[in-house]
Amino acid sequence: MTSAAFDVLGIGNAIVDVITRADDAFLGKHGLVKGSMMLIDEARAEQLYAAMGPGVEVSGGSCGNTMAGVASFGGKGAYIGKVRDDQLGQVFRHDINALGVAFDTKAAKNGPSTARCLVLVTPDAQRTMATYLGACVDLGPEDLDAEAIKRSQLVYLEGYLYDPPRAKAAFLEAAKIAHEAGGGVALTLSDPFCVERHKADFQDLVDHHVDVLFANEAELKALTGCSDFDHAVAEVRGKCAVAAITRSALGSVVLTDEGAVTVPAMPVSELVDTTGAGDLYAAGFLFGMTHGLGPADCARLGGLAAAEIISHMGARPLVSLKQLRRERLPELSL
Amino acid sequence: MTSAAFDVLGIGNAIVDVITRADDAFLGKHGLVKGSMMLIDEARAEQLYAAMGPGVEVSGGSCGNTMAGVASFGGKGAYIGKVRDDQLGQVFRHDINALGVAFDTKAAKNGPSTARCLVLVTPDAQRTMATYLGACVDLGPEDLDAEAIKRSQLVYLEGYLYDPPRAKAAFLEAAKIAHEAGGGVALTLSDPFCVERHKADFQDLVDHHVDVLFANEAELKALTGCSDFDHAVAEVRGKCAVAAITRSALGSVVLTDEGAVTVPAMPVSELVDTTGAGDLYAAGFLFGMTHGLGPADCARLGGLAAAEIISHMGARPLVSLKQLRRERLPELSL
Repeated sequence: MTSAAFDVLGIGNAIVDVITRADDAFLGKHGLVKGSMMLIDEARAEQLYAAMGPGVEVSGGSCGNTMAGVASFGGKGAYIGKVRDDQLGQVFRHDINALGVAFDTKAAKNGPSTARCLVLVTPDAQRTMATYLGACVDLGPEDLDAEAIKRSQLVYLEGYLYDPPRAKAAFLEAAKIAHEAGGGVALTLSDPFCVERHKADFQDLVDHHVDVLFANEAELKALTGCSDFDHAVAEVRGKCAVAAITRSALGSVVLTDEGAVTVPAMPVSELVDTTGAGDLYAAGFLFGMTHGLGPADCARLGGLAAAEIISHMGARPLVSLKQLRRERLPELSL
Repeated sequence: MTSAAFDVLGIGNAIVDVITRADDAFLGKHGLVKGSMMLIDEARAEQLYAAMGPGVEVSGGSCGNTMAGVASFGGKGAYIGKVRDDQLGQVFRHDINALGVAFDTKAAKNGPSTARCLVLVTPDAQRTMATYLGACVDLGPEDLDAEAIKRSQLVYLEGYLYDPPRAKAAFLEAAKIAHEAGGGVALTLSDPFCVERHKADFQDLVDHHVDVLFANEAELKALTGCSDFDHAVAEVRGKCAVAAITRSALGSVVLTDEGAVTVPAMPVSELVDTTGAGDLYAAGFLFGMTHGLGPADCARLGGLAAAEIISHMGARPLVSLKQLRRERLPELSL
């Protein structure tokens, strides 16, 4: 696959983040569980938005953030996701295009507005998210660009795609197209509650359709049903070619046919906002994989990108990750 | 006026900022003059937006930023400005309401969309702005809340209001209502090019309608036609009760009937983005004035707020200015 048009093609929920600071009391009052993502309907979104402080709007979506990271490393990316033809949809499209990521999915002309994720950052730098899926519910198999998928080294899918009703079919179809064309399929489990909502589906995916799995500890435990980390690792080992398990400050563990590699986290001078840590870890890892690096170096690139994103507000990189990689990991043969 | 409902009522162009980083070459290529504000039409706004990098959307508008600052100091504020009933208009309304600022101006139901200001921050931390006025052109005298104006200690007007066609009439009417009710009128000159566009109007305003004038060096020189700072100061002296002239790193000079006071700038550990420096200086100064402080202390509060705003991206405070004031200027009798 040396002539691939894209290193990574991502499919995800196209979302604009509305970021604000909040305290623990606010989370409690509004029934939000710290560190998790909760789905909310439009009425609840309006109610929560009205209660929260001034916000900053910035393009987001787990997979969108990852694709922004891949592009920032210098990778060639494409994105498939659904916005509406409204102002926030235009913002989302502008931002991902401005990074050089191809994004040609047609905007919905009617129906719900572009999705919003209300991101509440507490003083401990944790983020708690409430997502109104909006136009994302319209994503279906008809939105897939089969030619682009065939011409990508890896297709990357976010687990959150199992929440909107028709995206699951798109998800499975994309994996099929990619595999038939000789490409790989990567999946992130996204969120432990999301895993609980679609557990059997995800287990089937990991067993039969996924080559590269991303998960954090909580997601891995939810998937395997094991409350012990080592047991959960043993359970998932061998089910897909590569599994990258992130452990926050403990770094990450990469499981392959050759065994397990543990890579420490990159030190961060100030932890500001953990939003996007997993998304950017995946970005570094996927960029490394599609540029010939081994598992440990992929994990180091992931750790580098995650360290950048948690040192500031927001889930998209503020500096060129290509430049940062050259400065901080010059020994990588890229 | 001890029973005033509001300390400050601001009238301005209600704008959402789209902030991005850019280099000098980008400014040159697009005919933008560093440090200034240029008015652009919708087509040009779309063209420039398409060319620029990923953005962050945040409520702005010079006077809106000032009112956010007044509220952050703990002041009671109200705002009059025109948005459309679109997503960015909702964002603007949410954000200013979330700060506790009363904002009851009806959104336009048709016509141009909510105003956007494309803010390009260069590596030297200077900001260059291109504004599409959008729905702001619909602001007129009919949008004034005369009762709210009468119940405010000070009415604060941004010079940019002279750009949309009908706001000038609203501006003069608001000043008249305020004065008749015993309140004061403050004006910021906003931008040297804006002063050049409406020079005779501004000279008349300063001579006959304004009690408190805010200007930076370039704006003061444009207003007076004096290329020398001291001459320009001599020219404006005595024309209004208070004139606060900001000089970036040199601090500010406040002219009153009693003479001139020079207040040094507050040191800043890292200069990141000068957007909003003047707006937040005005916020501190106005909060001080409406809370019984003398000119020098008003200028110190202005300097404190300006220092906070230039230490991060964006033109609205990221911390409580009330808290910051208590920490940094505990000696003020407030």
